[in-house]
Amino acid sequence: MALSAAAANEAMTSAGALDRLLDATRPGMDRVNAMILAKASSHVDLVPEVARYLIDAGGKRLRPMLTIAAAMLFGKANGSEVNFAAAVEFMHNATLLHDDVVDESDMRRGRAAARMKWGNQASVLVGDFLLGQAFMMMVDTGNVAALKVISQAATIIAEGEVLQLAKTRDLSASAADYDEVIGAKTATLFEAATEVGAMAGGADAAGREALRHYGRELGFAFQLVDDVLDYRGEADTLGKNTGDDLREGKMTLPMILALQEATPAEREIIVAALGNVDAGAAELRQVLAVFDRYDTLGRTIERAITHARRARESLKQLPPSEMKSLLGEVAEITVSRAY
Amino acid sequence: MALSAAAANEAMTSAGALDRLLDATRPGMDRVNAMILAKASSHVDLVPEVARYLIDAGGKRLRPMLTIAAAMLFGKANGSEVNFAAAVEFMHNATLLHDDVVDESDMRRGRAAARMKWGNQASVLVGDFLLGQAFMMMVDTGNVAALKVISQAATIIAEGEVLQLAKTRDLSASAADYDEVIGAKTATLFEAATEVGAMAGGADAAGREALRHYGRELGFAFQLVDDVLDYRGEADTLGKNTGDDLREGKMTLPMILALQEATPAEREIIVAALGNVDAGAAELRQVLAVFDRYDTLGRTIERAITHARRARESLKQLPPSEMKSLLGEVAEITVSRAY
Repeated sequence: MALSAAAANEAMTSAGALDRLLDATRPGMDRVNAMILAKASSHVDLVPEVARYLIDAGGKRLRPMLTIAAAMLFGKANGSEVNFAAAVEFMHNATLLHDDVVDESDMRRGRAAARMKWGNQASVLVGDFLLGQAFMMMVDTGNVAALKVISQAATIIAEGEVLQLAKTRDLSASAADYDEVIGAKTATLFEAATEVGAMAGGADAAGREALRHYGRELGFAFQLVDDVLDYRGEADTLGKNTGDDLREGKMTLPMILALQEATPAEREIIVAALGNVDAGAAELRQVLAVFDRYDTLGRTIERAITHARRARESLKQLPPSEMKSLLGEVAEITVSRAY
Repeated sequence: MALSAAAANEAMTSAGALDRLLDATRPGMDRVNAMILAKASSHVDLVPEVARYLIDAGGKRLRPMLTIAAAMLFGKANGSEVNFAAAVEFMHNATLLHDDVVDESDMRRGRAAARMKWGNQASVLVGDFLLGQAFMMMVDTGNVAALKVISQAATIIAEGEVLQLAKTRDLSASAADYDEVIGAKTATLFEAATEVGAMAGGADAAGREALRHYGRELGFAFQLVDDVLDYRGEADTLGKNTGDDLREGKMTLPMILALQEATPAEREIIVAALGNVDAGAAELRQVLAVFDRYDTLGRTIERAITHARRARESLKQLPPSEMKSLLGEVAEITVSRAY
């Protein structure tokens, strides 16, 4: 892994920022968590059973925390940020339930994926339920402008997922294709989370635009790191299996960069493993050897660092505050996951 | 089939009403159809490919037509009914895409189900796209009260689908369970379609309530008839295979009524076929013989007729108009499909 000392340093200084963000947003997040629990309930027993199985597994709740933080940044939060934050988390969980069906994943958040316990059917339908509840929570705010941001995001996320599906095992996929996919499927929800947070916090147009941009760049950084960890993380900290992207034939940046430079022999190694559901530790090791030769994981992290820096820079024109510094540091924390 | 002569007569007088409804709503439906086409487009090619495959197959577009008709009934339609109508149709189509994955259906609207051509993945994701677009079209109207009606409907529909899934092959399912399932999964969207139509048409509270009730009762009638046709229709006019509900283990009313009265021997015949994916014409014939013995299809139709009458009665207090008569007749047409 070729990382500049400066970059590594920068990542180290961010340690603890996530904990401080957790502390700073706790009152809001307590309300968000209560709303998440309340809105995951239903008189149809199977609904909360499946929904809570996923929700209780935790996850970082990074997106709703960003919504709350963005609202706090502008000092005029009116309470609607709680609805938006819970809605964003529900949209995210709906996407996870549907993604696991699409990807035929076995694991999620460190346990068996919901579809392994209740079948694909329940995952599809409970995902739909969560989407409906997300819209209900947003409609309850009466904020049509924010509703527009999030319903547009829902559409774009689905497009991104379809594009990713269409590019599965497409050896000619480019870095631009990859940017389009993750821009739509991941960065759009981060962007919406921080933008509606800013709106709920009473931001002016410039503030809203700054937070929109911040979320988008952070989302790119986050997904780039995720795609590195899929190859190099540990299953127990990752919450899913290493090498899933390889077996699913996903054209993530480390793979795209490797294919661009691979010799015919290396290309053959990759092609044999890519989209091969039976590819195990041996195949993964061989592919990683090619990745290492061209430092594609390191180059992917470098791109993540660039996006994280841009995220922090998006906040530049905002007045100094503790929350602003925290959000800047959090952008870098996102990347430090990869070290 | 034990139908009273009066009921049969009533059904006959309705002939042609659907054509007249088509004519009466044509200008609005032209705009709805244009919006449906426009909103099914995407720069991600696979999205319109899958969406249009389903949309072009047609279907009756009964729900959006009801939205337009409901708006016209009150004479003050402001154009937003076009958005609501298109949104309702998108929600319906999203449900169909997801249902086909859940039910593992082969056919839909007389052709191979989308999932047979593009896989379950595309059906799940394009369904999500259509849901997102549906919300976008509604948000564009800025009508928060109507948004509330439809987002609540989205949640209830998903709950109904989950309940139906939970009741699969449940031999103790009751008629009340069935009412709960179809009330949620089917009647809720009809109800929302006519209620938001009335709202867009400038209805007062009583008018809105009348149309809400009309749609709900019509939805019940529609689903009851659908569940009869699944056993007794012809695959070519039905657009799907006869006996699907039997093979999928769906606890529809004809089945529930039969199980309540079946002898142990008859029960054995049913249990062997229910949820058996290999149940063919012979098994279906045997089950139908039990249904005939207790007239469960006829009794299901009688319930549909009752709901259709209630639908018409819901409009009673509204001032007389050509559209009001048409909507009353359409309720009965829905049932006459079953003869």
